[in-house]
Amino acid sequence: MKADIPADHPRRGSLLAREAIADGVDSGLVDRTGLIAHGRGEAFDYLLGEATPPPAMMAIDAAAASLLLAERPVISVNGNTAVLSGKALASLSRAHRIPLEVNIFHRTEERMARLVRFMEDFNPHRVLGLDADATIPGLAQPRSRCSSDGIFASDVVLVPLEDGDRAQALVSMGKTVVTVDLNPLSRTARMASITIVDNVVRAIPAVHERMDALSLEEAEEVLGSFVNEDNLAASLLYIEERLRALSGKR
Amino acid sequence: MKADIPADHPRRGSLLAREAIADGVDSGLVDRTGLIAHGRGEAFDYLLGEATPPPAMMAIDAAAASLLLAERPVISVNGNTAVLSGKALASLSRAHRIPLEVNIFHRTEERMARLVRFMEDFNPHRVLGLDADATIPGLAQPRSRCSSDGIFASDVVLVPLEDGDRAQALVSMGKTVVTVDLNPLSRTARMASITIVDNVVRAIPAVHERMDALSLEEAEEVLGSFVNEDNLAASLLYIEERLRALSGKR
Repeated sequence: MKADIPADHPRRGSLLAREAIADGVDSGLVDRTGLIAHGRGEAFDYLLGEATPPPAMMAIDAAAASLLLAERPVISVNGNTAVLSGKALASLSRAHRIPLEVNIFHRTEERMARLVRFMEDFNPHRVLGLDADATIPGLAQPRSRCSSDGIFASDVVLVPLEDGDRAQALVSMGKTVVTVDLNPLSRTARMASITIVDNVVRAIPAVHERMDALSLEEAEEVLGSFVNEDNLAASLLYIEERLRALSGKR
Repeated sequence: MKADIPADHPRRGSLLAREAIADGVDSGLVDRTGLIAHGRGEAFDYLLGEATPPPAMMAIDAAAASLLLAERPVISVNGNTAVLSGKALASLSRAHRIPLEVNIFHRTEERMARLVRFMEDFNPHRVLGLDADATIPGLAQPRSRCSSDGIFASDVVLVPLEDGDRAQALVSMGKTVVTVDLNPLSRTARMASITIVDNVVRAIPAVHERMDALSLEEAEEVLGSFVNEDNLAASLLYIEERLRALSGKR
């Protein structure tokens, strides 16, 4: 299939991601509803011009700072995230010794096992999830399940492409919730402590790079000056300005 | 499943549509890629506030006028359109004696037969598509196939949720192409003669209503003053202003 997309196609990245998600459904890593969620993301990424906007760079810095300063950070991985950014997340996990936890919305034991195996093949620091022996208060079963060693005990959770209810429940537990969400208006985007309004494919390697670069002192400074609400407003403004430019071109 | 969505849920319409598309995949009416396309639509509808914007009302008027004044109008129906608006299109087809033609991007004989049967159950004027004995110039097989009695001979084609290549090929044949597309920046939106930037679920009943109401004289007038490029720019401006209002509220 990759051979069908010309190397110089202007939207090659987007088409490869779409293909990865569709293949993920075939191989049982992604739930069918993941396709609809991916389509929503495609539309918002289109509005961003399929490039990381300046406000997202600030949120990426804050996310990196937050993970560096965390005592028990964890990265929550669902089907879409695994397929789109599994390798990049495993690399970040390995380099900074942050455990991954497979945690999915449409939970079946079969899909859990597949995703854990899929992520382990990328050699991350550690993969949790099968041992989901704890409960996130305020969510119904089986969506409330998590690992006592992972999400449950964490202080900072990087949880890209998350559902609004779950993001809210994690915030209610007192955790710093870092998310990646292309829709700056989504409930997840508004609920999270730090929201990176960008494509997860671009955002995760950027977070890793910033974690490698920032000192702990710099991280304190970055976090001290970051206000998620302002950053979301800046992302909205950026999309608005892009639309104005696009409509002006007509 | 419908029972799972509370009657007073603010986004009930959107959730029901999502469910209809997912069910359509199960029953073989919708190709899997239709889920991604639907997700893109959801995102743009979200930006419209899930309501018909004022510029779309003008495009709906122009679409109704164009169908009323056509000599050989036809309505092209694909999987997503059938599942979301099959009943409304059949009602329009019956009332105004406009044939439907099932015409799909990922063409298989099985899915064609299912869709023709699905549409016939709504009792439209006529359903074409299985007799795809003609060719749209400029498209590859099997995407080029159409009915000599339907799309091929038509002067006006209402073709919601269409692919950009196909919209362009129909315009190149000299047809008036009327489309419904939530993305005012898509190639289909820009290629079509009349683009309704709205959800097909809201737009089709509105087109029907305007067809019932407009006299032929009024229709001439409406069409004479409609400029698709201006209307698309107005839709973009509307989205831009909504984003500005939303970011101001933060």
